[in-house]
Amino acid sequence: MNLDPFFKSKRIAIIGASRENGKIGNVILRQLLGKNFTLFAVNPSADEILGIKSYPSVLDVPGTIELAVIATPAQTVPAILDQLGKKKVHHAVIITAGFKETGNTKLERDLQDKLKSHKILAIGPNCLGVLDCHTGLDTLFLPSDRLKRPKPGHISFVSQSGATGSAILDLLAGEDFGFAKFISYGNAANVSESDLISYLDKDPYTKVIAIYLEGAQNGRAFLDASRTCKKPIVLIKGGTTSFGSSAAKSHTGSLAGSADVYLGAFKQAGIIYTQTTQELFDTIKIFDKLHVGCAGNRVQIITNGGGYGILAADAVFRAGLTLAPAGAALKSLKKHMPTAILSNPLDLLGDADDERYCLALDAAISDPNSDAIVCIALPQTPRLDQNLIKIIAAAYQKSSKPFVLVTTGSTAAKHFKTRAEAAGIPCYDYPENAVDALKRYIEFCRKH
Amino acid sequence: MNLDPFFKSKRIAIIGASRENGKIGNVILRQLLGKNFTLFAVNPSADEILGIKSYPSVLDVPGTIELAVIATPAQTVPAILDQLGKKKVHHAVIITAGFKETGNTKLERDLQDKLKSHKILAIGPNCLGVLDCHTGLDTLFLPSDRLKRPKPGHISFVSQSGATGSAILDLLAGEDFGFAKFISYGNAANVSESDLISYLDKDPYTKVIAIYLEGAQNGRAFLDASRTCKKPIVLIKGGTTSFGSSAAKSHTGSLAGSADVYLGAFKQAGIIYTQTTQELFDTIKIFDKLHVGCAGNRVQIITNGGGYGILAADAVFRAGLTLAPAGAALKSLKKHMPTAILSNPLDLLGDADDERYCLALDAAISDPNSDAIVCIALPQTPRLDQNLIKIIAAAYQKSSKPFVLVTTGSTAAKHFKTRAEAAGIPCYDYPENAVDALKRYIEFCRKH
Repeated sequence: MNLDPFFKSKRIAIIGASRENGKIGNVILRQLLGKNFTLFAVNPSADEILGIKSYPSVLDVPGTIELAVIATPAQTVPAILDQLGKKKVHHAVIITAGFKETGNTKLERDLQDKLKSHKILAIGPNCLGVLDCHTGLDTLFLPSDRLKRPKPGHISFVSQSGATGSAILDLLAGEDFGFAKFISYGNAANVSESDLISYLDKDPYTKVIAIYLEGAQNGRAFLDASRTCKKPIVLIKGGTTSFGSSAAKSHTGSLAGSADVYLGAFKQAGIIYTQTTQELFDTIKIFDKLHVGCAGNRVQIITNGGGYGILAADAVFRAGLTLAPAGAALKSLKKHMPTAILSNPLDLLGDADDERYCLALDAAISDPNSDAIVCIALPQTPRLDQNLIKIIAAAYQKSSKPFVLVTTGSTAAKHFKTRAEAAGIPCYDYPENAVDALKRYIEFCRKH
Repeated sequence: MNLDPFFKSKRIAIIGASRENGKIGNVILRQLLGKNFTLFAVNPSADEILGIKSYPSVLDVPGTIELAVIATPAQTVPAILDQLGKKKVHHAVIITAGFKETGNTKLERDLQDKLKSHKILAIGPNCLGVLDCHTGLDTLFLPSDRLKRPKPGHISFVSQSGATGSAILDLLAGEDFGFAKFISYGNAANVSESDLISYLDKDPYTKVIAIYLEGAQNGRAFLDASRTCKKPIVLIKGGTTSFGSSAAKSHTGSLAGSADVYLGAFKQAGIIYTQTTQELFDTIKIFDKLHVGCAGNRVQIITNGGGYGILAADAVFRAGLTLAPAGAALKSLKKHMPTAILSNPLDLLGDADDERYCLALDAAISDPNSDAIVCIALPQTPRLDQNLIKIIAAAYQKSSKPFVLVTTGSTAAKHFKTRAEAAGIPCYDYPENAVDALKRYIEFCRKH
């Protein structure tokens, strides 16, 4: 199944392009303008839209069309697919809603028949379509002042729900996450989440695959695709309880199974299941940022706040990880910081300065007793300033162990966080979130 | 035990006041300047500090002193307490560290003897002391560019750990939370968390009490004070696992007990226990913002994103709450929004506008079938703009049911959130966090 044209097409027809500001067919055309695409507007009642020549139908478009984006009323879609068939267009993003999700099962069947007979692969219907942050191909009909487009990067996000997908995409873009691809695939007429996973597994830009799912089109195919996938798949599923699953039935028509069965199957397929949206967010972050393997589950905590170190240690216990035993590497710090608590957590105390962090990080990085590092830096204390992030970033670069940073607060902490994440370090507001994300990372490394 | 002078004193001596920028005794004096206090610097080697007359000892200070703040080396503290006794000063905040927490048990005992014989109540030693956001009394030695002071409000936070307390205080201040009092009480020489809880229970400014605790000075007293307290006490405890508790032993000398025993005792005492810092934050917010009671546990979800509604429904199930059955109030919306899913979650769909929210909220508020409302508003969708918050805020004002808002995203969502919280609405990024906080609120209401 060749999905490349959904992301890499150059010659794109927008069927239902509109002159009216704010209309779906207007927003989509606008988002594609000024990039490196050859665009064709298709709208029988216009000669030109936003400076792009408009044609009565795709059959009037000169030359080939690699991808059609359809944003016309549902009833018109089957006839448009006939025209696409005639024009030999084999890829379509069908934004249009009003098919099986509103009870129009006959229209959905018609659509599927047409797709099959014309050999058209479709994303949708009833979706936002695709965003490729590297090629700029963007069919999301929400303008960028509502839905911020992320910078190019390595997260790909596949969402069965358009609104959930766009809310999380907007949030992550605002937090400066980089994306490879975003796909809202709606009713999945003939391209499913399984097809998308297999495609993203081979996509050189994608490092981590995130999914919002209510129910797979084909459970076995989904699990097979996930099991085969070499990249981390982080999944949140709507409808894992009886309350959620009856709501999912009205939303995407997904049928519920027993949560225990799902969760067991997800685990067997190597899927990283997150129960909450916060966990999804925290987990995507660590897989996006870190590039190192992990040999074991012995965590070294470094802190300048005793309480935060303790909360982190509690989280390590609950996560089923363990604290690295304090050995020679830590003991050797004694001469440099006689008052510090050279244990695990390694407590550099409230008067810790850059030098203590530098020495402690070096010791932890080279310590054969530990496999991963949780570094806590609370910027309220008197001797720390923004320079510390340079030291932490240098240590992070040297570290061949997973490394996460925890910092909490207002202005200074937000600066810490922004600068640390720009340096590639996964950074968390709270120790428990950092440890939970680390746990998932370590588990994935153990299996791969 | 009269703790008023720690918060309401007008005549304050800063013992160890310093001319040197950044020094503890300098920061404290600076934070108290220009407010409505009569300040006395005490430092034998200065005549004047920051424009305030300096005295060789408290005995040289003319007139009464209501509160002494001590920031001199540990060894000097017992003699200073003798002077305070002579001067009839009965309240002291002892910032100074270097007592039992560093193994100096003898010095700690000396200190306690002096406090007893001179009838001095002390907060500390080894602490940040107090911040009263209503009177401006502030002994926190971290300057405001490091530790933002919150605006006056109704949260009081008692922290055994200075660094943890200040990190969370700074974070909450940055999020525009309002505080009544913040108390970092360190070694609790003779004012313990139990005394502070009893005091805050009667404090007219305090609506919710948050606590970071490693180990109570006296477990029974703590549970008794908590049980008696009529206000919500939200607690996070460091050292609830074996890893954390051995770290807590080095940090505050707190001894571990079995987590099960604690948690059971907390529950019996009516304490709202939060396992993570995120939960603490989410829980403080709902108790700070909401002012209504709650008659039951039937939650109505309103959403413009199907997937988010489902995730909220899953969270309602997991929280042990229930979904309100859809009755006449919801069905009556049919004529106004024929396509909406008039169920629970009530899905206003991606093309929801202000009017749909207005009608849906009115229906939910008056619906006898529901006890609480989770309103989800995803601002990525085309028909919503910032005006929606006016509608939601008006509904919130009318609602006699607990009401939380969920919104996710970048610019538009952050505006939603800022404006909604300014209107008093507890607002969350994710549905699960909102439902979890609501659960704790409903549980508290049920018991009170």
